[in-house]
Amino acid sequence: MCRLVAVKSTTPIQLAHLLTRPRHSIINQAFDSRLRLDLRRPINGDGFGVGWYDSVEDEELGSQPCIFKSITPAWNNANLTRIAEKIKSPLVFGHVRATTAGSLSQDNCHPWSFGKIMFMHNGGIAEFEKIKRTLQASLTDEIFLVPQGNTDSEWAFALYLSKLPDVHASNFSPEILRKAMLETIAHLNKMARDAGIREPSLLNFIVTDGSTIVASRYVSSRTDEAASLYFSSGTTFNEYAPGGHYRMSKSDKRENIIMIASEPLTFEKADWMEIKTNTLVDEHPPDSNYR
Amino acid sequence: MCRLVAVKSTTPIQLAHLLTRPRHSIINQAFDSRLRLDLRRPINGDGFGVGWYDSVEDEELGSQPCIFKSITPAWNNANLTRIAEKIKSPLVFGHVRATTAGSLSQDNCHPWSFGKIMFMHNGGIAEFEKIKRTLQASLTDEIFLVPQGNTDSEWAFALYLSKLPDVHASNFSPEILRKAMLETIAHLNKMARDAGIREPSLLNFIVTDGSTIVASRYVSSRTDEAASLYFSSGTTFNEYAPGGHYRMSKSDKRENIIMIASEPLTFEKADWMEIKTNTLVDEHPPDSNYR
Amino acid sequence: MCRLVAVKSTTPIQLAHLLTRPRHSIINQAFDSRLRLDLRRPINGDGFGVGWYDSVEDEELGSQPCIFKSITPAWNNANLTRIAEKIKSPLVFGHVRATTAGSLSQDNCHPWSFGKIMFMHNGGIAEFEKIKRTLQASLTDEIFLVPQGNTDSEWAFALYLSKLPDVHASNFSPEILRKAMLETIAHLNKMARDAGIREPSLLNFIVTDGSTIVASRYVSSRTDEAASLYFSSGTTFNEYAPGGHYRMSKSDKRENIIMIASEPLTFEKADWMEIKTNTLVDEHPPDSNYR
Amino acid sequence: MCRLVAVKSTTPIQLAHLLTRPRHSIINQAFDSRLRLDLRRPINGDGFGVGWYDSVEDEELGSQPCIFKSITPAWNNANLTRIAEKIKSPLVFGHVRATTAGSLSQDNCHPWSFGKIMFMHNGGIAEFEKIKRTLQASLTDEIFLVPQGNTDSEWAFALYLSKLPDVHASNFSPEILRKAMLETIAHLNKMARDAGIREPSLLNFIVTDGSTIVASRYVSSRTDEAASLYFSSGTTFNEYAPGGHYRMSKSDKRENIIMIASEPLTFEKADWMEIKTNTLVDEHPPDSNYR
Repeated sequence: MCRLVAVKSTTPIQLAHLLTRPRHSIINQAFDSRLRLDLRRPINGDGFGVGWYDSVEDEELGSQPCIFKSITPAWNNANLTRIAEKIKSPLVFGHVRATTAGSLSQDNCHPWSFGKIMFMHNGGIAEFEKIKRTLQASLTDEIFLVPQGNTDSEWAFALYLSKLPDVHASNFSPEILRKAMLETIAHLNKMARDAGIREPSLLNFIVTDGSTIVASRYVSSRTDEAASLYFSSGTTFNEYAPGGHYRMSKSDKRENIIMIASEPLTFEKADWMEIKTNTLVDEHPPDSNYR
Repeated sequence: MCRLVAVKSTTPIQLAHLLTRPRHSIINQAFDSRLRLDLRRPINGDGFGVGWYDSVEDEELGSQPCIFKSITPAWNNANLTRIAEKIKSPLVFGHVRATTAGSLSQDNCHPWSFGKIMFMHNGGIAEFEKIKRTLQASLTDEIFLVPQGNTDSEWAFALYLSKLPDVHASNFSPEILRKAMLETIAHLNKMARDAGIREPSLLNFIVTDGSTIVASRYVSSRTDEAASLYFSSGTTFNEYAPGGHYRMSKSDKRENIIMIASEPLTFEKADWMEIKTNTLVDEHPPDSNYR
Repeated sequence: MCRLVAVKSTTPIQLAHLLTRPRHSIINQAFDSRLRLDLRRPINGDGFGVGWYDSVEDEELGSQPCIFKSITPAWNNANLTRIAEKIKSPLVFGHVRATTAGSLSQDNCHPWSFGKIMFMHNGGIAEFEKIKRTLQASLTDEIFLVPQGNTDSEWAFALYLSKLPDVHASNFSPEILRKAMLETIAHLNKMARDAGIREPSLLNFIVTDGSTIVASRYVSSRTDEAASLYFSSGTTFNEYAPGGHYRMSKSDKRENIIMIASEPLTFEKADWMEIKTNTLVDEHPPDSNYR
Repeated sequence: MCRLVAVKSTTPIQLAHLLTRPRHSIINQAFDSRLRLDLRRPINGDGFGVGWYDSVEDEELGSQPCIFKSITPAWNNANLTRIAEKIKSPLVFGHVRATTAGSLSQDNCHPWSFGKIMFMHNGGIAEFEKIKRTLQASLTDEIFLVPQGNTDSEWAFALYLSKLPDVHASNFSPEILRKAMLETIAHLNKMARDAGIREPSLLNFIVTDGSTIVASRYVSSRTDEAASLYFSSGTTFNEYAPGGHYRMSKSDKRENIIMIASEPLTFEKADWMEIKTNTLVDEHPPDSNYR
């Protein structure tokens, strides 16, 4: 299982505060996982990726996100440490990978992007090899050629792109992003059913167009739990004690920053709301948009 | 364009004599290409791969080749330098990549293997994206799932595997290996024709089962030249002067060692026979098996 | 020999215009070197580094440069391609390495930084192993522990730092930066003389504090040529024809952008002034500050 | 803290049986450490190295070990998986690194070699920066130039080399190897004392010349425990149940294989003898050579 975090902030936030400095960032959790125990494979050292959007619009720079990936572990990556100190962004994705499928290559690291759309996944598509051809057959030629790697997750991204009415649109409404997510999950379910796959798939996807974040916590089973997913929001996210001790502050009613993450990123559990299994959320608190 | 070499020797030969020590090995040619001028991209620094079979049969070790790949340049790879000094093999493939398609990853480096079969390619399948789906559709489920990377070459390897009567056989006759090669090229030609592709494909493939080497020098055009391919054979291949000056010695009539390479690996051009365009060769001198 | 470029611009410039898009950027020169012929080793595929300062001052981000390094070739680096499209900076260093000393590691890639100071080198310190201990003995404990790699260049950087009156200063005058450069070269010369080294050293260094650039073109010999170094300045540096054809435009008298590079980065040779051997330059045209 | 294993076997043993296949190999322990809990940093994902000697003497191949290192995690390294299936050796070192000092580079990965001598370390030299200059000053020029990386461990290796009467000897007696180890530790202790360092150093070193293995379990403190070190020996080491369940078999009195490792490599704890703190062992059971 991987670890992931998506952050949206009204004020651009320095990546270091999200990724490299907090003791419980997804990167540092990768080797000190007190909050979770994955008995199968507790380490997330199979590469990582960080994606972010510009803090200031600049036509020359374009509207696509910037993505930095590496096949060496995130916790010891000098480039990431330097870049995270220097970049501020209003919308950041971070992903630390533990391979379940696909070899160790940057192509296989999350997130992926296409135009303004950025996507990442925590979980796995059960017996993906049985539906890979069907999934590919459902794609247009253009989308079929998008994936460069060899993971179930990147093909799920391609499937998601194929559910957008116009993948080249300059803007996407929250409704369109949500609808495409629901259709992606529904289509994966249908293909699994048709292929006689009974093992449940874990489909925690997070997608954004740079403005809206949409996330699913989903398992294709009535009895199993989905992979964990948490939500937090507040006025600021800052270090309250030296040594990387961060917390979400709620100094007033304003929700300046929201986080969606595979695990709570602080020790203050009260600040983290577990997203219920089989829920779709966006950057509003999950209560407001159950479906 | 890539560079490649295949060597078969009756006596196991130290990899260093083929790869790292000669001044004109495919690795050192990669940055000192006096014998060839590729105006588009004269450097082969996009990763490399070396594959070899055991010098002594050992049931515990199996009959598959060992393959070492890297995404850093071959000319400065400390692992390759050390391994090449330590390994002797009767049948070696070496490949230095210059990307024409596919990103920089070990998955995209040649050679690839499946069981005993090992395969590499120099050239490119023209407008591959137009025939990728058709090619994939022609494969069995098992072979469809073999490729881990994203290059035309690896899919050509999958196509080759699909042309073998029994990909899991413990032995392959030279005829079977040759026939599969001809069928692979014929199938690629048919798919290109059907897709209306007019740009010629460069299909220099080399394949082996650990015993027989089969190589094609082929271009799907009546007017263009294929990518270069040379053949040399002799009694021994050794250093005649310090500083990595190697030559093929022919001390008697015995042909103990044969080499098939994208360029002559020594300055003695007389020792190298250019393989004619659109010819299939194996480890016998090309004269003997034109077809 | 390596390739390097330093750029200072009154308006922050997108890194892509300097590094990845121009046909004659130091990265693309690395495999298409029509303007130079290094017979010993024409390829610069042994890693690269890019360093840049922020386009807007931001106390939280600090005044140190951001540095991105990689051991895979620059011409095929997806991270570099993405980052170069997204970053604008008023002062950029780029360096493509061809190893003469030190193994392939990020620690051995230029540029290096300490606080605000950033440094890179093209050339080599002759018989460095004979003066390594003397050089190290001249350093304070703090500076002695700065180098993380194993190259003559990084130790030259340490020596440079030791020539600054206060390495932790928040500001450095151009005079201080220049004086430290002259002392560094003088000290290297003295150590070489004392060790009886007669082979000339090639000491093209470029250093900056984020405001001033100081560069040397130097060879410790009366007869040999130094490694090449060129200067160009103009109003804008932009693409005048599709396909990465860039040139320096001089639409008015203002010198908005200056470049110092190991080779001309455009085909318009008239735009490039060769810096004379054994000259120190800064971001003013070299005529104005010969010494 | 790192993990390491040294194995000597009268019959060459396939590396896969030691490294990649056992569930409790040092590689698989790296992400499933049921037998040890290092609260500071439980993961060993910062590169690894494997060194081995030839199974058959061959003058052309030389007597130095072959070493394969990588900066990506060992548990997901396709090259290691393939090589380990293909190599048999009578004497193998394996090391998985968790950085305490030195950045992530192959130069900083253990083991290191010089001629026939191979060396690795688990632990750390306390406040190494305070004795680095003194240590370097004690070395001959030749040995001073051996280290290519920047770790306390590699400099300890250089110190060890300097304690050998003739580092270029073609043979080393067990006594010479042991004496050099004791002198290395004594010298490190003296330098620490002279520098006023009070924090204890953890000095578990393992060295070999391809014939004899000498290992220390040492902490420079009367009250602290050294890093763990275990010894096991038997007739064969083999898989008794599918899924990588290995054990040491003792079918007769012969001790065909011995292992020295930072942790027991099997669940049969009775097969593993803890080496006492501040003991030097070689390939004989530790009882026989306490000193």
